[in-house]
Amino acid sequence: MITLYTWTTPNGRKPAIMLEELGWDYEVKGVNIGRDEQFAPDFLKVSPNNKIPAIVDHDAEGGPLSIFESGAILTYLAEKSGRFLAPSGHARFKALEWLHWQIGGLGPMLGQLGYFANRAPEKVPLAIDRFRDECARLFGVMNKRLEESEYLGGDYSIADIACYPWMIVALKDAMGETLARSSGIHAWLDRVGARPAVQKGMKVLQ
Amino acid sequence: MITLYTWTTPNGRKPAIMLEELGWDYEVKGVNIGRDEQFAPDFLKVSPNNKIPAIVDHDAEGGPLSIFESGAILTYLAEKSGRFLAPSGHARFKALEWLHWQIGGLGPMLGQLGYFANRAPEKVPLAIDRFRDECARLFGVMNKRLEESEYLGGDYSIADIACYPWMIVALKDAMGETLARSSGIHAWLDRVGARPAVQKGMKVLQ
Repeated sequence: MITLYTWTTPNGRKPAIMLEELGWDYEVKGVNIGRDEQFAPDFLKVSPNNKIPAIVDHDAEGGPLSIFESGAILTYLAEKSGRFLAPSGHARFKALEWLHWQIGGLGPMLGQLGYFANRAPEKVPLAIDRFRDECARLFGVMNKRLEESEYLGGDYSIADIACYPWMIVALKDAMGETLARSSGIHAWLDRVGARPAVQKGMKVLQ
Repeated sequence: MITLYTWTTPNGRKPAIMLEELGWDYEVKGVNIGRDEQFAPDFLKVSPNNKIPAIVDHDAEGGPLSIFESGAILTYLAEKSGRFLAPSGHARFKALEWLHWQIGGLGPMLGQLGYFANRAPEKVPLAIDRFRDECARLFGVMNKRLEESEYLGGDYSIADIACYPWMIVALKDAMGETLARSSGIHAWLDRVGARPAVQKGMKVLQ
């Protein structure tokens, strides 16, 4: 059994999608970040960086194992199951490069754009423009890839699972208009969004 | 033979440190991001996200393999060599969670702090404070870990290699004073910085 500590955010939905894809039994524990529950001592034992998502695999090799950071969790579940990430060779590292691109680029930049465009106590054009421009650049890179390849890593993989919830935020949020012309991304959104596991994972805790 | 496309930045130094640790033959190609060389068509074939670092392993399983994103490169080199990342079990995922913590948190947040504190055309207190506070929080998390463990993942791993060049920037840059009280981080900096491979990798292209 796996316990998933999560919330209704893009990062929080990634492991829920993956666990639905695998069809594994898991229990969800909501960590309400609106109520600062990520600072509770019991949660910090699992996730010392006070962020969701985190998991505990009670049946891991060598005893119960807690993992924080969504990219590490997806990699763990892929390696344990042998699915959605090739075990070696080109296919593995094409998927891992796009996974890391999401973790280090798409996620942080969309996150900062969301803050400065929507939630900051004042509107700072320098910051809004900076993150909007960087997101537009990232979308251009992603769209080019998805015009050449059905999925980011070649086959459907944890890279797509990592990017999908963020791109749904992007569509609804500040960047919908920029994305209107990105036909590669839109075809991919349809392809990934048609998967029942993705639909279920996106509704975690809802 | 591996070709490393890089520059004198924290992300650019990570694979140089790793290749020095491995003692492998590699050639360095400088991509001068001050002169926009990251947009050259030949480089974009290797790194479609127009960022350094990237590698080409001319002797990869299945033919020459290009990889972009520093976290994916470190993982590739660790798996090819069987070093600095356990092949399975708890040790593997403790290292991977801290690797992803660097890729998605420490790196982007220090990067944005560097921009808003030092290079932006105007000083925006909202942005400077936001990224300074988040870096201080991340340092607190890292320091706590390094007071309990000699290295981030337990043993020395690609997680330490990923964090070290960023922490050197942090020390020299806006956050040196905050770090003065972080004894776990300072002991770790001394430990990692004493490694000859780290010293060589930090001087790539210098």
